[in-house]
Amino acid sequence: MKDILDYFKANDERYLTELAQFIAIPSISADPAHRKDITKTASFVEKQLKAAGLKNVKQHPTKGNPVVYGEWLGAKGAPTVLLYGHYDVQPVEPVSLWKTPPFEMTIKGGKMFARGTADDKGQVFILFKVIEAYLKNRKQLPVNVKVIVEGEEEVGSTNLAEFVKKNRALLSCDSILIADTNMLGKDKPSITYGLRGLTYLEVSVTSLNGDQHSGTYGGAVANPVQVLAEMLVQCKDPKTSKVKIPGFYDDVVPLGRKERGELAKIPHNDEHYAKRLGATMTFGEKGYSTIERTGARPTFEINGIWGGHTGEGVKTVLPASAHAKVSMRLVANQDPGKIAKLFIDYFKSIAPPTVKADVKLFDNNGYAALTPIESPGMKAAAVAIKKVYKKDPFYTREGGSIPVVADFQQLLGVDAILLGFGLPDDNLHAPNEKMDLSQFRAGLATVSYFLEEYAKVK
Amino acid sequence: MKDILDYFKANDERYLTELAQFIAIPSISADPAHRKDITKTASFVEKQLKAAGLKNVKQHPTKGNPVVYGEWLGAKGAPTVLLYGHYDVQPVEPVSLWKTPPFEMTIKGGKMFARGTADDKGQVFILFKVIEAYLKNRKQLPVNVKVIVEGEEEVGSTNLAEFVKKNRALLSCDSILIADTNMLGKDKPSITYGLRGLTYLEVSVTSLNGDQHSGTYGGAVANPVQVLAEMLVQCKDPKTSKVKIPGFYDDVVPLGRKERGELAKIPHNDEHYAKRLGATMTFGEKGYSTIERTGARPTFEINGIWGGHTGEGVKTVLPASAHAKVSMRLVANQDPGKIAKLFIDYFKSIAPPTVKADVKLFDNNGYAALTPIESPGMKAAAVAIKKVYKKDPFYTREGGSIPVVADFQQLLGVDAILLGFGLPDDNLHAPNEKMDLSQFRAGLATVSYFLEEYAKVK
Repeated sequence: MKDILDYFKANDERYLTELAQFIAIPSISADPAHRKDITKTASFVEKQLKAAGLKNVKQHPTKGNPVVYGEWLGAKGAPTVLLYGHYDVQPVEPVSLWKTPPFEMTIKGGKMFARGTADDKGQVFILFKVIEAYLKNRKQLPVNVKVIVEGEEEVGSTNLAEFVKKNRALLSCDSILIADTNMLGKDKPSITYGLRGLTYLEVSVTSLNGDQHSGTYGGAVANPVQVLAEMLVQCKDPKTSKVKIPGFYDDVVPLGRKERGELAKIPHNDEHYAKRLGATMTFGEKGYSTIERTGARPTFEINGIWGGHTGEGVKTVLPASAHAKVSMRLVANQDPGKIAKLFIDYFKSIAPPTVKADVKLFDNNGYAALTPIESPGMKAAAVAIKKVYKKDPFYTREGGSIPVVADFQQLLGVDAILLGFGLPDDNLHAPNEKMDLSQFRAGLATVSYFLEEYAKVK
Repeated sequence: MKDILDYFKANDERYLTELAQFIAIPSISADPAHRKDITKTASFVEKQLKAAGLKNVKQHPTKGNPVVYGEWLGAKGAPTVLLYGHYDVQPVEPVSLWKTPPFEMTIKGGKMFARGTADDKGQVFILFKVIEAYLKNRKQLPVNVKVIVEGEEEVGSTNLAEFVKKNRALLSCDSILIADTNMLGKDKPSITYGLRGLTYLEVSVTSLNGDQHSGTYGGAVANPVQVLAEMLVQCKDPKTSKVKIPGFYDDVVPLGRKERGELAKIPHNDEHYAKRLGATMTFGEKGYSTIERTGARPTFEINGIWGGHTGEGVKTVLPASAHAKVSMRLVANQDPGKIAKLFIDYFKSIAPPTVKADVKLFDNNGYAALTPIESPGMKAAAVAIKKVYKKDPFYTREGGSIPVVADFQQLLGVDAILLGFGLPDDNLHAPNEKMDLSQFRAGLATVSYFLEEYAKVK
């Protein structure tokens, strides 16, 4: 490995110069005004993949932004790893809160500041440069690699699943490495092995054909806000926080003793956690720790509620209807479509005869993702981390959802390894995004070791 | 009575001309642009009272609009009736929905159309003309009368209680006649003998110092919307609709058998009632009829609720706080201040330790009003109605609140008789307000008979 690590050192300055060029193109996918920048960035990625020595490099058009693909399949008999990242970035508003220009990479105190440094240009760039280092020095990689870099991650990867479906053969692999997540800390290296899924709905309870005077009609007909409150309370037990939708937990992969042991190792203090959020205390599903509650257990949350008079002062109105946005975070192996149906059926079944209950399902549902800690890819990642960080990794599950991960797993039928080098203070999606230089450099080494180890374990 | 009734007939045309002049002044108390019209209208009322033959007629300034007062105290040994009405009117928007000019009294099909015809210029004008008829024809009235006409009823009678407090001696009387309500129908004459009181509050439940990501934190801390729903459900029993605030019913004057019998006589059909409101069915406090629930029983209603994401589409937010407007309609002898305190104490006591609960009390609380059906004033009103309408009146309780009624009762220590000649289809506070000519004329006779009868019964 000395040749590879030496190559990283020798080319460090050039890497940062090229990364700064990558970052300088404001590829904000949410803003149609930046469409040209998206095209420019896709071409930049294409050039990087070609320069790294990949074959079959090509921009694949989609209904949205192009997917850039490249591959190197010269490792006969060795497994194939699909490497994923994205070239689009979040908007930068409010610009006034940025201490350095958002698209001018500024290095200060060992940190690279700019939009996209951590999410995800700086991380996907690690993949480019690992490939380059191997192919320049050895003319070969330890494993076969396929690289896919999309341009719509920040707007929900709208067209990626379709692309993957249409190109299953092209993308077939043994494992997927996703370079788009965080570690717990520089001295707390970690691998994300689970993400939660999601189903999101809007419920409405209607009792009247129009708002009425609460003096004239109050007491004579059902109040839809009251009924909605009653129905929401029947969705989650106030004491145990158990979701009360029948069948909700049926498909949940239970937490094993070993896994709970791993999760218990993660440094965490409930009191500090609550204090940081301004909460009086933590609160959640009975029988589980905060780490488990946020990563490994499904939830039912009300994301919003409204009905009747919500303005200033007094209005003596009996509302005609009341509404709420509700969502459920899911874990493996819950099916978002099935869970949505269970909820809809249950919600309608508990509606009293005094009201009409409606439910609308939004289309951004996603499966949870879970990669066993004992899987070959996870083992390879753990060894790689140990070699670079001189520590065993923590194993974490993220509470949020990256639907594309589950899409990859389901469409390609393989495990996803979330090996990311971001840190919790990177200001993702916020002003002053940064990536630590030390994490960028450790990333180059860790991904290299991962490929070496993966060739062995698989 | 022939002299009086003949006088009404002979002067009918003049009455309508004068009423049209009264109505033509757009005395909208809610709109400061109409301040001059308020002054003009107060002067018009002053002239009417003087022309009717009252003494001591005067505009009394308040912090807001003047109160016009006049009296005739020549009936030695007879009781004194305080007659109340208001000269201000509601705004007229949206003007485009008016079929005739809002301030041009238009008579069509036996109805007078214009803002203020029913609420309340047309009704208070009845009082002026009854007095005029007696004093012109007989130089005396059957009882002593005091007349008070205010100009802020449509904006909450802000300064009236203060005026009454300062002028208790001036206003001292045996009964108050309020000409500002409806009857059930032309062929269903009725007297309102009860109004509900009100206390209105805003509650807030806070669990975090800011909105958070529902993926990252969902399941680890209390969801304030969920907690608010749980707390609201504890305020009213979902099955019986009984308010669960301890002590809430303690001071309620129970419905007696005779009173329930009177209320049961009121024509009412639950199915039609529900259908008109677009409700699947009526629903309310167990053991009471719809008429009783809306008029004679206290309620707890949620007037509004909000928290978290209330816009379009999906936002996976864990809200920091949730809010609701709640109000309680009260009946005699509930004290709004005491009830508000009971609610605040209870609401805070049921807040789980995961949240901070706050309650804000609005200052528009008011006592309920209740005049016994057997009281002398009610009896006199019933006889008067029978003489004019050839039917016994129905006795109704209104679900809404007119705080000034309770203020009068409490400050002056006498009963209030709500003898109004409006009809349910008068479009109060709406475009195309009207008053039926037949009701206006019946009002003149009925108030005259009331004064005659009150002189006998008291």
